[in-house]
Amino acid sequence: MHPFELRKQSPLLIVISGPSGVGKDSIVQRMMERGFPFHFVVTATTREKRANEIHGKDYWFVSEDEFASMIEKDELIEYAIVYGDYKGIPKAQVREALASGKDVVMRVDVQGAESVRKLAPEALLIFITCESEEELEHRLRERKTESADSLSLRIATARKELQRINDFDYVIINRDFHLDDTVEKVRAIIDAEHLKVHHRKVEL
Amino acid sequence: MHPFELRKQSPLLIVISGPSGVGKDSIVQRMMERGFPFHFVVTATTREKRANEIHGKDYWFVSEDEFASMIEKDELIEYAIVYGDYKGIPKAQVREALASGKDVVMRVDVQGAESVRKLAPEALLIFITCESEEELEHRLRERKTESADSLSLRIATARKELQRINDFDYVIINRDFHLDDTVEKVRAIIDAEHLKVHHRKVEL
Repeated sequence: MHPFELRKQSPLLIVISGPSGVGKDSIVQRMMERGFPFHFVVTATTREKRANEIHGKDYWFVSEDEFASMIEKDELIEYAIVYGDYKGIPKAQVREALASGKDVVMRVDVQGAESVRKLAPEALLIFITCESEEELEHRLRERKTESADSLSLRIATARKELQRINDFDYVIINRDFHLDDTVEKVRAIIDAEHLKVHHRKVEL
Repeated sequence: MHPFELRKQSPLLIVISGPSGVGKDSIVQRMMERGFPFHFVVTATTREKRANEIHGKDYWFVSEDEFASMIEKDELIEYAIVYGDYKGIPKAQVREALASGKDVVMRVDVQGAESVRKLAPEALLIFITCESEEELEHRLRERKTESADSLSLRIATARKELQRINDFDYVIINRDFHLDDTVEKVRAIIDAEHLKVHHRKVEL
């Protein structure tokens, strides 16, 4: 690296991950509200839209046929079946976003984050967790959108996912009522990564 | 790492380094003024005290005999001859500071930083630079404390030291009149390092 050409950096590919219920969606939303300079990659999903969600902003809500076509054409960075629904990230979106020079942020579940790592080893993986297993169970229980029978499945999955923390670069405890603290931690991580002498150069 | 025991971290050993004239002293001083929670390790030196410096706070000003004794007893983490004067960091100070559980900050010249890395590979090395070579020369020229004949030597050394940037973890451009920006970048680096899944465990 030349000492006076520090700004010629490649953008980061930032993955916000962690078990269901830890608050990934709220974190990304708050980052947007606070005007963080990044491009958000929207996940495609076959699951039903929740009342407060917007198509194209929160998720791309697609049919199973549309999703199958994306799989066949190898158009997805990663995809997974999560509680019976398909979720995946279109490659083209990420490539275009990176080409614009802005950092790219993705919200991905734990198995998805591991797929991203395989495809882009220089991706920056942030694991979001909460203060305790009890707290996580409590949050999953409070989520009115889930049916009763999926709760125990979500809890079991979350417990297992917590064990994958060592595959990640950073970990943030998203405390109840401390969303802004969490978002400041994400900011510190991004700022610090841009100050690294040896950059993460993402190629897709 | 256990997902809910994230705070049981070892303290960081943070090295603020870079060529003469980039503003290492001002940065550390501002970090103290702003109440950053760290233990500052004071360097021992045989050079003469400048008018505004305080013994034991800015440096330990020692005689050549005292310094020679520390070398013989292997009491120094690193030492170097800088422009004819000896500078070095007492090991005991760093060990005690780390044992207290606080992050430890050292201000060290470039050759010193490389010695610290050899002894403590998990040390966090931050390289401070300025916007251009011309700016660095200007700053060295403005420093009233240096004699005329040492200026060209300092410039040549600084130029050479700038080439060592690849041995460091992070680099910050300390812009004129933007000291608080620089200090915020140091803070982001420290905060981010504390959020890493795989900690730097410093052993001395």
